[in-house]
Amino acid sequence: MSVAVTSADGTHIPLLEAELLRRVGSGDSLLELACLDALFPTGKLLRPVLCMESAESVGGTADQVLAFAAGIECLHVASLVHDDIIDQDPVRRGRASTIEQYGLAEALVAGDGLSMAGLAALLSCGPAEPVLHAARVTVDALRHMCQGLMRETEIRGDLTCGVPTVLDVMRAKTAALTGAACQAGAILAGAPPRQHQALRRYGEQLGMAFQIRDDLLPYTAEDRITGKTAISDVANLQPTLPVLLAYEAADETDRDRLTALFHGGTDPVTAHRDILAVLTRTGALAKAARMASTCAEQARAELTGLPRSTRLAELATSAADRQY
Amino acid sequence: MSVAVTSADGTHIPLLEAELLRRVGSGDSLLELACLDALFPTGKLLRPVLCMESAESVGGTADQVLAFAAGIECLHVASLVHDDIIDQDPVRRGRASTIEQYGLAEALVAGDGLSMAGLAALLSCGPAEPVLHAARVTVDALRHMCQGLMRETEIRGDLTCGVPTVLDVMRAKTAALTGAACQAGAILAGAPPRQHQALRRYGEQLGMAFQIRDDLLPYTAEDRITGKTAISDVANLQPTLPVLLAYEAADETDRDRLTALFHGGTDPVTAHRDILAVLTRTGALAKAARMASTCAEQARAELTGLPRSTRLAELATSAADRQY
Repeated sequence: MSVAVTSADGTHIPLLEAELLRRVGSGDSLLELACLDALFPTGKLLRPVLCMESAESVGGTADQVLAFAAGIECLHVASLVHDDIIDQDPVRRGRASTIEQYGLAEALVAGDGLSMAGLAALLSCGPAEPVLHAARVTVDALRHMCQGLMRETEIRGDLTCGVPTVLDVMRAKTAALTGAACQAGAILAGAPPRQHQALRRYGEQLGMAFQIRDDLLPYTAEDRITGKTAISDVANLQPTLPVLLAYEAADETDRDRLTALFHGGTDPVTAHRDILAVLTRTGALAKAARMASTCAEQARAELTGLPRSTRLAELATSAADRQY
Repeated sequence: MSVAVTSADGTHIPLLEAELLRRVGSGDSLLELACLDALFPTGKLLRPVLCMESAESVGGTADQVLAFAAGIECLHVASLVHDDIIDQDPVRRGRASTIEQYGLAEALVAGDGLSMAGLAALLSCGPAEPVLHAARVTVDALRHMCQGLMRETEIRGDLTCGVPTVLDVMRAKTAALTGAACQAGAILAGAPPRQHQALRRYGEQLGMAFQIRDDLLPYTAEDRITGKTAISDVANLQPTLPVLLAYEAADETDRDRLTALFHGGTDPVTAHRDILAVLTRTGALAKAARMASTCAEQARAELTGLPRSTRLAELATSAADRQY
């Protein structure tokens, strides 16, 4: 849990944690144990908080969407569990990742099980029409997420894929689900299309800001703060936004340097240090930070006319400023 | 596609194939390509056919449930794609499995993508109330499937886990979804609870018969017929029903022999040959076949009183008799 999300959400977080426990079970089987271990201690709970805040922003209650919000968190964490299999990442939130702790087969099934627990939660709440609508919106976002994940495996090691491609991957991998979390919350709270569509766009822009910051973290924060290894992206030869911005702005020497580093073979710690030097020299870090701020600004602009959106505006701001 | 399912379903199969194509896309991305490759050429399409036949058996139409049925097939195939990752199985339906052909990360994401395409299909059809009900039933079954998969990884190599445990795994891994396919079809067709619950029990018993037969196939059919390697279960040290029945009935010498084989280390071809000898000596093959027939009989008994159930009765019979 991070300060930024919890500060104004004292009431949401404990509700969510209790609901997550209720949805996943008490740990009576290996499946439940692995799912609980992936969920707790929780991360920032950004997506479910967005869902609850969105419901409130249009005049609904957090309670109305609690099960749905918990379901979205399960689905998000399921994608992290699978992500760590793909990246062979031993660390998640400062602890051993599910694959590291339970093994490949078990992590794969735990991810699938969490997805299904999440879907069961989505489908469990409220009157059929809005639930079905909100579930469709969410499942569509999850399909986009898979497309983004697959595209990401394709561009591994490819510095020439271009900034627009990396932005597309972000939209699919992150922004689609944050957008859906907001839109679903509003739909379940009975918002008219104009409002729930605006909240979807808000959530997408916030997701972009959040993800751009996330890609900057290995170069701006320390391991103990982010809870993951700063060298993970580098070790996986994953071209992220700041790296591609640097590649675009770099002179020939720095381009060659980046290209060599992304051919693999350099030890990740050295590679990370060398990339950081290029990112700084080319102004890529500052440029990416500005892009995050612009997304947050666009997110806030979508809130105009919503009855109670102060908290959502704050969340957008903190997404673009986060150092954790 | 197998003769048993297609013979009386000339109209269902082409409809289903077209719907699957429509649901997954035309292969414009690596994700779609991998999904299409996992779906086509199709397998027996047992679950979607059960869904359509169940709808018809209570007076509905196959058309009413077509999208839902296709969704169930996507979800089933998604589980096969992940199953082959767990078992490191290079062969599926006589062809290279998704992991063998595309790699681990890609197969993992393809399975997730197929799941989401399947869920989108489930949620797409018809009036909200019955769709939501049918989707809940199906997602519950998929949760059970994950529990079964996880339990299976736990009993790997353990010949003392007992026949009831292996039957529980079958119920979770196979029977839950065949039951849900039937129940969902009936719900979508507007059947009263008495009918859709009977069809669920029918589907569960048919699933048990089908799975018991499946576990017998490595010892009764040739590779070219089953389309998978007969030695897969043995290579994975997976104790199946016939093996556990043999273990229960075996004398001390044969028990020791089985125990040694399930400690691993024996080459799979020799292990398979030695296990087959014990299965035959102990009468385990015949006993398992009788259990499949009993399940099929119980499945057929559930059909009493349904308006049009001839085809479902035939499907139950062929599930227990199949040699493919």
